[in-house]
Amino acid sequence: MDKFKIGFIGMGRRGDYWLHGCILAREDVDLRWICDIDSEKLEAASAKIAAKGFNPKATTDFHDILKDSEVEAVIISTDWESHIPIAIECMKAGMPVGLEVGGAYSVNDCFRLVHTWEETGTFFMMLENCCYGRTEMMLLNMARQNLFGDIVHCSGGYCHDLRNSLARGRELKHYRLRNYLNRNCDTYPTHALIPIFKLLDINNGNRMVSLYSAASPAKGLMHYSKETGFGTEDILPNGAMHGDVVTTIIKCAHGETIHLNLETTLPRFYSRDLSVHGTKGIFTENGDSFYFDNIPEHHKSEAHKDFYGNIEDFYSEYDHPLWKKTLKEGVTGGHGGMDGLVLSAFAQSVKNGWESPVDVYDAASAMCITALSDESIATGMPVGIPDFTNGIWLCRKEKEKTLYSL
Amino acid sequence: MDKFKIGFIGMGRRGDYWLHGCILAREDVDLRWICDIDSEKLEAASAKIAAKGFNPKATTDFHDILKDSEVEAVIISTDWESHIPIAIECMKAGMPVGLEVGGAYSVNDCFRLVHTWEETGTFFMMLENCCYGRTEMMLLNMARQNLFGDIVHCSGGYCHDLRNSLARGRELKHYRLRNYLNRNCDTYPTHALIPIFKLLDINNGNRMVSLYSAASPAKGLMHYSKETGFGTEDILPNGAMHGDVVTTIIKCAHGETIHLNLETTLPRFYSRDLSVHGTKGIFTENGDSFYFDNIPEHHKSEAHKDFYGNIEDFYSEYDHPLWKKTLKEGVTGGHGGMDGLVLSAFAQSVKNGWESPVDVYDAASAMCITALSDESIATGMPVGIPDFTNGIWLCRKEKEKTLYSL
Repeated sequence: MDKFKIGFIGMGRRGDYWLHGCILAREDVDLRWICDIDSEKLEAASAKIAAKGFNPKATTDFHDILKDSEVEAVIISTDWESHIPIAIECMKAGMPVGLEVGGAYSVNDCFRLVHTWEETGTFFMMLENCCYGRTEMMLLNMARQNLFGDIVHCSGGYCHDLRNSLARGRELKHYRLRNYLNRNCDTYPTHALIPIFKLLDINNGNRMVSLYSAASPAKGLMHYSKETGFGTEDILPNGAMHGDVVTTIIKCAHGETIHLNLETTLPRFYSRDLSVHGTKGIFTENGDSFYFDNIPEHHKSEAHKDFYGNIEDFYSEYDHPLWKKTLKEGVTGGHGGMDGLVLSAFAQSVKNGWESPVDVYDAASAMCITALSDESIATGMPVGIPDFTNGIWLCRKEKEKTLYSL
Repeated sequence: MDKFKIGFIGMGRRGDYWLHGCILAREDVDLRWICDIDSEKLEAASAKIAAKGFNPKATTDFHDILKDSEVEAVIISTDWESHIPIAIECMKAGMPVGLEVGGAYSVNDCFRLVHTWEETGTFFMMLENCCYGRTEMMLLNMARQNLFGDIVHCSGGYCHDLRNSLARGRELKHYRLRNYLNRNCDTYPTHALIPIFKLLDINNGNRMVSLYSAASPAKGLMHYSKETGFGTEDILPNGAMHGDVVTTIIKCAHGETIHLNLETTLPRFYSRDLSVHGTKGIFTENGDSFYFDNIPEHHKSEAHKDFYGNIEDFYSEYDHPLWKKTLKEGVTGGHGGMDGLVLSAFAQSVKNGWESPVDVYDAASAMCITALSDESIATGMPVGIPDFTNGIWLCRKEKEKTLYSL
């Protein structure tokens, strides 16, 4: 395969990690452009990249990339506010899009994203790296083998102590801080939710129909700022708006429930808090435990622990084929290999003209949760979740698509 | 202390476990009466008790116990439907009540319970044994030392695979089955919730203000019945109504949120799924992990694991004094010692005229969650939670009361 020639938009911390944790190490990717509206960030990024022997063109205007007919795709890794507007302009220009994760500010913006894709047909993929997590993929692999039986409930979340980067948001020019100072909602739903989409066939024979969100008090950042002296000019005057723990319950068309959790401003260990609950077995990430009803025939002579135990007991048999291959060939790319895998899926899909593994409907469905949780918390009421497919979810029942092509 | 002379009402499985797992082994308790409306159960219970050398009087009418002036208190361990009516009659007769846990069928019934207590002044305690769990008590002990900082969120649940006893409900004459066949709500909220009341000062300076509940499909019992052949005459014809996973979000007066979970009809390991989330630290039961921000001064020279690690690392320093004493003297009574401790608290409170450790307001507040989650699931809407104290929660700010007297 020819090198995948890309432009990269957004040179913040995530952009830096993308390039130096994954992209620049790849033989099969050719970084043609970098872009950031902040010329200081752009210059620093150029210098750091040049020191590794690469010399992509640099611009503060992403439209310059769209005019370069050799570029095959862009990755958008900007602030959340500009995700959808830039993605729309790229699609209109016929430029394939890989969009970093984040939430939306309005349901309308999600519809604009969907309609632009439907009108242009330009390739679009949300780069949800957690779809490629080893645990997430093993769970999907096991679900496809019907080990959980009928899955009736899933939970997941983003539990990550971000207080330091939030309190240093001014210094880091981080978009997250302004969101936390002014909004109260699940600002970051996709990491847990899109892998759950795959488990529950959302937009492929199932869909989400409503949600209810509640936010705890927002005390964590204030406490942290007082204790550490970070962010005192931004956080101490009025505190933050973003609840320390934001809980969302989603109902699906076939009755399944999803419990979504966001906890980013308290001291804690990292967790995506995944759980899967089915008629034949369950998995809970906290505790790393599987529990199954029956030991299948071919396991009868083996250790019982294989069907009742920690995640380590299950990898050897149930790792997804893509992860078995990855482990054999060597894990590459940041975030434990997820970045490398999502980038490969993006490149292969664009090059081969495949369906998007995480398409515009998945992206809109996940991103809208932010705007809808905002509304639910503000009103104290449950809200409906739009059908961004306009009924296409009833027709699409293929379970795998090209999500995990080898 | 003289022996605590009691009558015991309800000789089902819980009653049997109470007597043979705890009460009959106690030197300080004198079982004067047993009662069950089912004469077969009563006879079987009498025979089993007689075989151990005890000979309480037996009756199918609990009013007989109320006429016995030597009896100091009754324990009500009947079906959920009769909990409140029997408790009310006992209080009216001036007979101190220890009420087993369960949910209510209407908010009105909870108010009747409260008003009866207010009018009669008869001692009332809900025998919530989980308030006396080692983990729950250690968490409370740590919270009282402000180790978690401001607690903004708690979660808890009752995650227990009850499929076998449910599917054998007809044979066991178990009240749970008829509830699961006809109701869809959190039928069993108290085990997690009342210990959380203590952490969040509910009815003592704080209160719950609203809830929203959602239920997953009810597929677990049907699947189990098909697989095992148990309960085919009750479950297979129409399935069950009770969602396999019932999720409830509760909002409190000071903004704290509680995530409550009930999961009893899927294959799984037991868990009360407790978690505590504060500005200085968190605990999650699944994973058994504590995580704290700062290592206090007196720990600086010791292992860091004491402030970041599994529950075992914390017992030695943070066990509640009552549990330290209990472990020294030997754990007695069922459910890992909780039954013995809750019985002691009940006996001491009645004998000494102390305030009830788990009073009628706690009981009503917890039991009403069942009726309100029923309403929320049926309507798809959040519902308000009544203030059963009529404002007294604003005045009661003592944090310990006699809950854990030594």
